[in-house]
Amino acid sequence: VSISEIGERGLIEKIMNQFSVMPGMPVPFWDDISAVSLGDGRAVILKTDMLVWMTDVPKGMTYEQAARKCVIMNFSDLACKGVQPQAFLAAIGLPKVTTVDTVEEICKGFEKGVREYDAYMIGGDTNEACDIILSGMAYGLVDERRILKRGGARPGDILCTTGFFGETSAAFKILLDDFEASRGLRDLLLKSVYIPRAKVKEGMVLSKSGAVTSCIDSSDGLAISLHDLCRSSNIGFKLNNIPVSENAEKFATKHELDPKKLALYGGEEYELVFTVKLSMIQEAKKALSEVGCKLLEIGVVQKEKRITYVEDTVEKPVKLFGWDHFQSN
Amino acid sequence: VSISEIGERGLIEKIMNQFSVMPGMPVPFWDDISAVSLGDGRAVILKTDMLVWMTDVPKGMTYEQAARKCVIMNFSDLACKGVQPQAFLAAIGLPKVTTVDTVEEICKGFEKGVREYDAYMIGGDTNEACDIILSGMAYGLVDERRILKRGGARPGDILCTTGFFGETSAAFKILLDDFEASRGLRDLLLKSVYIPRAKVKEGMVLSKSGAVTSCIDSSDGLAISLHDLCRSSNIGFKLNNIPVSENAEKFATKHELDPKKLALYGGEEYELVFTVKLSMIQEAKKALSEVGCKLLEIGVVQKEKRITYVEDTVEKPVKLFGWDHFQSN
Repeated sequence: VSISEIGERGLIEKIMNQFSVMPGMPVPFWDDISAVSLGDGRAVILKTDMLVWMTDVPKGMTYEQAARKCVIMNFSDLACKGVQPQAFLAAIGLPKVTTVDTVEEICKGFEKGVREYDAYMIGGDTNEACDIILSGMAYGLVDERRILKRGGARPGDILCTTGFFGETSAAFKILLDDFEASRGLRDLLLKSVYIPRAKVKEGMVLSKSGAVTSCIDSSDGLAISLHDLCRSSNIGFKLNNIPVSENAEKFATKHELDPKKLALYGGEEYELVFTVKLSMIQEAKKALSEVGCKLLEIGVVQKEKRITYVEDTVEKPVKLFGWDHFQSN
Repeated sequence: VSISEIGERGLIEKIMNQFSVMPGMPVPFWDDISAVSLGDGRAVILKTDMLVWMTDVPKGMTYEQAARKCVIMNFSDLACKGVQPQAFLAAIGLPKVTTVDTVEEICKGFEKGVREYDAYMIGGDTNEACDIILSGMAYGLVDERRILKRGGARPGDILCTTGFFGETSAAFKILLDDFEASRGLRDLLLKSVYIPRAKVKEGMVLSKSGAVTSCIDSSDGLAISLHDLCRSSNIGFKLNNIPVSENAEKFATKHELDPKKLALYGGEEYELVFTVKLSMIQEAKKALSEVGCKLLEIGVVQKEKRITYVEDTVEKPVKLFGWDHFQSN
């Protein structure tokens, strides 16, 4: 059986079964990040995520942007736990024919990415490989009680996001399927893919607010993120407001696409998707507004373990569908 | 200019220039490991090193052995700092056609490697790639004052190792150049490549002894490790006893090779190469003997910044020669 037959999620289950679990881990095994308790109330937070040129770098993206994105991918997972990244390491695989200029551009991208978030590049390793492989590792330190969890959503909580969705879906349609868009719209949409942002400040203020019951980043797409939250918290969601970006809406209108589907079934958006206690929604809004972010209420948590949204008075399911590394083409 | 023209060392210098350095790092940038101070006397130690199937996995090595070796590569760098590894993460790149069985074997190798050293696998990530890429990351925690340094060797110190060299050189001659050896010798030599050991306990007791002035692991070969120690400590070495393994000696005799060259210019041996204050050599010996390891005295530190050994009353230089990821063929 090949891994493309069982997919990334099936594979991760197989992988998890092979390991004995460290006692006393503050966060479950194979969550968005790994945590090790320091025994004094603090925990070390670690995350590793790999960017592979062939599969993860769309056309038009520069080396600098790709390396910066490798930082963002890793920092976004710290962000959704409410953790400030402090340091970054990279193991770099390079074909022998790579130019020194290319490596310098890659390093500039790493440096840019880490310094945007007040972190530092503290080490790494270079190797020969068949393709450019940027394997990143993020480090942060956090008060153990402040780590945002995946599994704490309760019926009645409000489902929220830090931003709108659908721009990366539209951008990938432009990049991979040659969809057209006006120059201005095209640039805005591509920017979402080339220069993403990790919501680090947003995650930190949400963590401090004490209002958040569960949180995840949306790097696998909104739909998959919602399904992951549901599975971890053993609940469901009723969406009443799918957060479609205005630019994605314009793109959808032009191409007669369903804007809700662009928003649900995309990926690499790095927004935070989280649930808030009904009684504390004002605290969460206030916390986010202090870092210039508008909280978007998109639904409610329900006991029934399904995820639905209403369209033309018909209730429709949010499918478990999005990016899979091994089943995509 | 391609990276194969400037080599791995030239490349690392170019890379280092691109980054702003984190203030207060307990260990210099781009040392064997990266360290972040916790502010309470402890430091977090991090190391990332990548194993690429095409270039790093010799024929006959199983998936399990390769994954275990990825752990050893990373833990060896913690060992030479005197640090107990506590946790390991792996970002794994896999071609789509990889079988689930292969991934399970890889995971078994990771689990075996980490548990041998009382550490745990705490997380990771899977990705599609052109080749099997195992990017490992080791985590340890240490008393900041106990970190073994590269740069503390002083003239008069004794140069030592935790073991003998040359077996991996011989094994690579068997694997890459079809050299012959008797069944028994062949098995012993290949074991050095397939099932290496990281000298974790050895590094920890040396650190506790307070006798060690500088230390490095020998993953790039004895000669390169000696040159790295010299550069960091601004000294030189006079070798009086090149530590050739008995099996390497046998292999050299059979093939009329220079056993000293096998020992000096190999790689992937993961022994510790370190210097000890003359007045504390007994403490260092005693510390190592407590973990079943014999300290080998191989030379002395000298002020003159050259590395030499004596053969047939002639003083010969130890060349800066060994494994380079980008200049090898």
